Amino acid sequence: MKINDQEIRLKTTLRLEDGDHKRCFGPGVAALLEEIQEQQSLRAAAANMGMAYSKAWRIIRTAEEAFGCKLLDSTIGGRHGGGAELTEAAERILTAYRACQAEVNAFAQEKFQSGFAFLQGD
Amino acid sequence: MKINDQEIRLKTTLRLEDGDHKRCFGPGVAALLEEIQEQQSLRAAAANMGMAYSKAWRIIRTAEEAFGCKLLDSTIGGRHGGGAELTEAAERILTAYRACQAEVNAFAQEKFQSGFAFLQGD
Repeated sequence: MKINDQEIRLKTTLRLEDGDHKRCFGPGVAALLEEIQEQQSLRAAAANMGMAYSKAWRIIRTAEEAFGCKLLDSTIGGRHGGGAELTEAAERILTAYRACQAEVNAFAQEKFQSGFAFLQGD
Repeated sequence: MKINDQEIRLKTTLRLEDGDHKRCFGPGVAALLEEIQEQQSLRAAAANMGMAYSKAWRIIRTAEEAFGCKLLDSTIGGRHGGGAELTEAAERILTAYRACQAEVNAFAQEKFQSGFAFLQGD
């Protein structure tokens, strides 16, 4: 939306939190899972995202503990010798998150356009 | 939603970004404006939120620059001698943000319930 001669944009972030208010799934885990799909390796995915392997591993573990299911399957061989691929559960969660995010974002953009119209330049 | 024997919650965050992708309005500014309404002072609001006065001032200035309008009016006297109150523009922006946030959050919770139902425990 054009406000004060510049484009002001609304960004919507969806995060899941566990019973202790600990973040367990959000944009970071989703991006990491997509990169693992691409690279078929947790190590390569982390490196590509400029993330420490230990951090990537921790992010995955936190989500696994929250959901109570494995997100990664180990694979033998692969580009980096011994890789990883998403479990069926991980694929379903990722798909559900992306769908939810897309729908919520589209809705939010509409509400933003109408709710903030009073700030809009000509 | 009950997943893996614990309550997993969806948190929705709305942020406005300016043309340079710089955050100019979100949960932090909104909470600060509400605290200023309460305290009628930027200094007292910042102190109550455990925030440095300089940071509070910068947050307000960033939003003012993005929207091209003043958010605070200086007041004479007041509890802390020389206070601040929200301008009409700030009140409209705050109201629009809270309304947008409430609507988007309600919508997001619905989508979360249906989209992630497959993870739900009995």
